[in-house]
Amino acid sequence: MINSYAASESGGKLEPYEYDAGPLAANDVEINVEHCGLCHSDLSMLNNEWGMTEYPFVPGHEVIGTISAKGAEVESLNVGQRVGLGWHSGYCLSCHQCMEGDHNLCTKAAGTVIGRHGGFADKVRAQAASVVPLPDGIDPVSAGPLFCGGITVFNPLVQFNVAPTSKVAVIGIGGLGHIALQFLRAWGCEVTAFTSTEAKKDEALSLGAHHTINSTDKNQLDLAANSFDLVISTVNVKLNWNRYIGTLKSKGRLHFVGATLEPLDISVFPLISSQRSISGSPVGSPAVIAKMLEFAKQHNIKPVVEQFRFDQVNEAIAHLESGKARYRVVLSR
Amino acid sequence: MINSYAASESGGKLEPYEYDAGPLAANDVEINVEHCGLCHSDLSMLNNEWGMTEYPFVPGHEVIGTISAKGAEVESLNVGQRVGLGWHSGYCLSCHQCMEGDHNLCTKAAGTVIGRHGGFADKVRAQAASVVPLPDGIDPVSAGPLFCGGITVFNPLVQFNVAPTSKVAVIGIGGLGHIALQFLRAWGCEVTAFTSTEAKKDEALSLGAHHTINSTDKNQLDLAANSFDLVISTVNVKLNWNRYIGTLKSKGRLHFVGATLEPLDISVFPLISSQRSISGSPVGSPAVIAKMLEFAKQHNIKPVVEQFRFDQVNEAIAHLESGKARYRVVLSR
Repeated sequence: MINSYAASESGGKLEPYEYDAGPLAANDVEINVEHCGLCHSDLSMLNNEWGMTEYPFVPGHEVIGTISAKGAEVESLNVGQRVGLGWHSGYCLSCHQCMEGDHNLCTKAAGTVIGRHGGFADKVRAQAASVVPLPDGIDPVSAGPLFCGGITVFNPLVQFNVAPTSKVAVIGIGGLGHIALQFLRAWGCEVTAFTSTEAKKDEALSLGAHHTINSTDKNQLDLAANSFDLVISTVNVKLNWNRYIGTLKSKGRLHFVGATLEPLDISVFPLISSQRSISGSPVGSPAVIAKMLEFAKQHNIKPVVEQFRFDQVNEAIAHLESGKARYRVVLSR
Repeated sequence: MINSYAASESGGKLEPYEYDAGPLAANDVEINVEHCGLCHSDLSMLNNEWGMTEYPFVPGHEVIGTISAKGAEVESLNVGQRVGLGWHSGYCLSCHQCMEGDHNLCTKAAGTVIGRHGGFADKVRAQAASVVPLPDGIDPVSAGPLFCGGITVFNPLVQFNVAPTSKVAVIGIGGLGHIALQFLRAWGCEVTAFTSTEAKKDEALSLGAHHTINSTDKNQLDLAANSFDLVISTVNVKLNWNRYIGTLKSKGRLHFVGATLEPLDISVFPLISSQRSISGSPVGSPAVIAKMLEFAKQHNIKPVVEQFRFDQVNEAIAHLESGKARYRVVLSR
């Protein structure tokens, strides 16, 4: 039996919930959960914002733990090994995307908290291919958020071959943005943080930004025209996107990892005249996650986390919902 | 003195107009015009749609001719040599874009018909760096439109390293699209034409398309979901862009070379979930124009043109305005 925390209805409190996960599938592993991050998408799922939540709902898709059991066919992982599990807990392993190494784009990928029970539990299961060993020397307490928030901002650097000579700006210095600043700094880029509050300015600089721009000041945005090779947006609100496109150099890219729901009302002329691009991407593949972990270890990059015990899960959720989390919330045994 | 055809006011008829171009600048050449294409942007400039036309206005930026004189510093071209001149007639040659070979993105680039007199004339002048030799074996009558319409659709294939294994679709089979189909076919791609009229279907197939999709048929668009690596839009009208984004495979790109004026109301989620991009580009650099000409020669790619005499210029303009041109209009001596 697995002892978890589950909500029985949309927006409901999490309560202890015990379930029988059945026999372990041949290609799956079971993980003894040590730590699990709490991500905004757990809240979206808890509140059924995307219309696909099944209850009882067990959140948690930024898992760090050790392999407690493995299926008959699993050869890549060993019992006792420390691993992480992120947004995806399985892939078809045979579609074009999987065959090209883009497992994160597999249309049949299983979500760790979609139609299955997540990591707010003593144990969680996943296909071995979706589980990535945690390198020795990475702090397990803060590593969980790398498996969703971290990989989401690291992946574009790999996908678009971002050069260390690039000038890169980040919109939104929160759960994703604060990790993006660290990665970009270590990547060799000149890093700018767009911040809307003066309070975040010093934090952004301490996290790796070389410069900050107050995004509420139209003059500062205008002064930044034609400045950046890449602007990464981590926010989910509507901004004046054409103004941010104006901050791109020719051949520059505005890249979305934050799922803003309102359509982008983009003028096409600034794209044509300066050969600019707009794009988006989700989390990364297991191969890119492994690459990210090595890079994070090499450069001592860590999500900044606030730790709660698993039995404080409702308190942790309230804290994240209040907007006061700095910057990721982690539940620990 | 140069004998040209000029309009004296917005939308005015073109009349013979003689002007003194003064001494030839050291880095410029003078071209004896043999043929000159008539492009939609000549009409936009004639009608001052972009608010930057100076009158008397001499259109014409798809010039084929021979060098009649060269400035004291010009070493790259010789008198008598056959050349072409496109949208740009000069570059700063020193900015970052120019130094990287992206002269077409130079913000100080001179437009052949912007603040200067174009190719509807017996002679036209341009900076030597903006003039590209026409390889022997390219038909001079139909080559003019390669220098604006042609390079506009060829350039993205170079800029984005489009692979011959790509599946590419073209929106709008007109002045630009009919050349795009030819280039893409020769590039090795599997080519689809989106057409809105049944009449264009056979023409699209004869120009190089392997398949056609009736873009007015929602079912056909839905059936084409996740089909293309690249969709090139050559139109300047508003379409249901989100539906076209749905026809892109993961990592696919919707690329604009047609300057649609209404904002793109793009949903961000389909970009994020499948790592898709949107982009735009203008004409190409002289280096890419030269590459295009060699490729066009190798594969016998020609704009399909309708020929008029220079003294039929107003008739030619009326023909283009009527929407009946198949597919580019060229004035010849």
